[in-house]
Amino acid sequence: MPELRRDPASRSWVVIATERSRRPSDFRVPRDERKGGVCPFCYGNEHMTPPEVLALGRDADAPNEKGWSVRVVPNKFPALTLDAGDGAGDGRGTGGGPDGPRGLYSHLPAVGVHEVLVESPDHDSTFGTHSQSQMEDVLEAMVARARALSRNDRLSYLQIFKNWGRVGGASLEHTHCQLIATPIVPAVIEEELAVAREHYDRTGECLYCDIVRAETEEGARVIEKSDHFLVFCPYAARLPFETWVVPMAHGARFEDIDGAELADLARVLRRTVRRFELAFEALPYNLIWHTSPWTGNFGAYYHWHLELVPRLAILAGFELGTGYYINPTAPEAAAASLREYAPESVVETDDEVRATTLLAEDRA
Amino acid sequence: MPELRRDPASRSWVVIATERSRRPSDFRVPRDERKGGVCPFCYGNEHMTPPEVLALGRDADAPNEKGWSVRVVPNKFPALTLDAGDGAGDGRGTGGGPDGPRGLYSHLPAVGVHEVLVESPDHDSTFGTHSQSQMEDVLEAMVARARALSRNDRLSYLQIFKNWGRVGGASLEHTHCQLIATPIVPAVIEEELAVAREHYDRTGECLYCDIVRAETEEGARVIEKSDHFLVFCPYAARLPFETWVVPMAHGARFEDIDGAELADLARVLRRTVRRFELAFEALPYNLIWHTSPWTGNFGAYYHWHLELVPRLAILAGFELGTGYYINPTAPEAAAASLREYAPESVVETDDEVRATTLLAEDRA
Repeated sequence: MPELRRDPASRSWVVIATERSRRPSDFRVPRDERKGGVCPFCYGNEHMTPPEVLALGRDADAPNEKGWSVRVVPNKFPALTLDAGDGAGDGRGTGGGPDGPRGLYSHLPAVGVHEVLVESPDHDSTFGTHSQSQMEDVLEAMVARARALSRNDRLSYLQIFKNWGRVGGASLEHTHCQLIATPIVPAVIEEELAVAREHYDRTGECLYCDIVRAETEEGARVIEKSDHFLVFCPYAARLPFETWVVPMAHGARFEDIDGAELADLARVLRRTVRRFELAFEALPYNLIWHTSPWTGNFGAYYHWHLELVPRLAILAGFELGTGYYINPTAPEAAAASLREYAPESVVETDDEVRATTLLAEDRA
Repeated sequence: MPELRRDPASRSWVVIATERSRRPSDFRVPRDERKGGVCPFCYGNEHMTPPEVLALGRDADAPNEKGWSVRVVPNKFPALTLDAGDGAGDGRGTGGGPDGPRGLYSHLPAVGVHEVLVESPDHDSTFGTHSQSQMEDVLEAMVARARALSRNDRLSYLQIFKNWGRVGGASLEHTHCQLIATPIVPAVIEEELAVAREHYDRTGECLYCDIVRAETEEGARVIEKSDHFLVFCPYAARLPFETWVVPMAHGARFEDIDGAELADLARVLRRTVRRFELAFEALPYNLIWHTSPWTGNFGAYYHWHLELVPRLAILAGFELGTGYYINPTAPEAAAASLREYAPESVVETDDEVRATTLLAEDRA
């Protein structure tokens, strides 16, 4: 019998088709065709992007040259810019004003920052094939940018995300993440904050700490548990094989993680994405950071985490119309499948850097 | 300069890239490959679907035979069923219960109805090529099903929608709509009701009536105005070429429309979808009904309408993470483009039935 399940964090309802429980092999995932052409994110083409705002792995006295391990550049076609709001309020929900007749409409200058994080000089590497040190550089660059941008009073939130595959929304195939800082707190985060606050007021506990404990006890939806993170398919997974990565230690802001957590998150993300690569070969997905806004102190009750959303099903009329989802794969079945794909190839020695490069060449 | 605009009905923010304003020809829309095989929605294959719940156009004493103009059948793989909740409360948000350890999770039996409305015996007809009488039959069948389902106390809302094209989520190519009745009011509608209620309490006016007046006055986003409907690109369109069809007369429930409105809606939908077909050739889209729940009386302030969401952009990490959108085509530019594609071919005589059939053959 299908079940209507409610996600405790977003309060959205999901129809879970518990009787069908499709396995990875039931999904046909076409591989993207390679685009060819010159890649602006490869070594030697640094001049094709706006000047970098951060680079790790090479001397600081040679900016915009090759030699970097990770590079952060402004988006060439930014959705939001810091120029947009000059003289129009502080950008945090003020400025702009009523628009059009009858004062029904309102707008703000599109103040913000839109950056691209090039994860590796290797065009074909992925979160599943990056070396451990490469992945740590990726996370370190995110933390550094988050800390720097949080000091700008006009910005309220940083949305960090990765679109992978054309169906996942990636328009460039060279492995990259995006950072978009906005003057307003996103609706999704506002809702999560309100729900987490209510849970805290009622129980005295952090909702996400409670979820981590409940999932650890039940076990059926857990994919893996590392020193610092629980990886699991959430109870009311919206889409097939949706997976969350939640730190076991309570913390509201991603950018406050310490070195041990960062190294562990790098390992966990590599292993998790590798599982998906082994199970689906060429899975399009979105990896989405959920963290605390910079506009207040939510430390008592909010808990940062990552949501990995495989794009195996199309969001169509029902989902767009209702805000609810129909998921043909129960999260218990998804987790059981994913546990089978143990990412043996992701070892933790320095040798793997070479192994990873070979893997990437093999796939090219 | 891009602008952050807020939709007055959903309160979601959209980054509108006003300087780029892409035209229809800037979007590459690949045509779906034809699937081939036996179609369960064509004449002669009526036995391939569950027994019909409604058919128009043929004698009632020969059910599940050919001769129908429009046919409504239960979905063969329903997301929700009326069997699901037997003995588990009244289905309207009760029954089910806490699930898993710590009482964090809750579920309900997936009570509901999931039906498919086969719009025409013509496999290849579309909302843009249906004859006027065909389209009136489609809408009449929807109204009849909505009225019938509204009498079931276990159902709270009927989501009517059309997924068109594979990117739009259509898994069968024969032209059809879907009806999903749910025991809970969708989050999207709850939010619209709350916003409309607040506007009504503050101003004494219906928000949507105000929007219709504002759009008519401003004109820049209007595509067409018929006797009973305003067709326009909304101020904070979430996706390129998003288009709303709003009745000018205030009314909360779609299924309460009268005969003149129904005939006019049939004309307006045919003309509107035809515009898209002329502008984009093979546009994937979702057409989504927004109407009043059956759980209360929202007649003073809610106003039913349709939202047509072309799937020209992928909803990716930013949209999923924030609930906000980045739209590369300003709605003023989208409306101006769509006004240019006058659907001359949609005439209103009986001759067009033949013209439409020829068109369909031509495309087959």
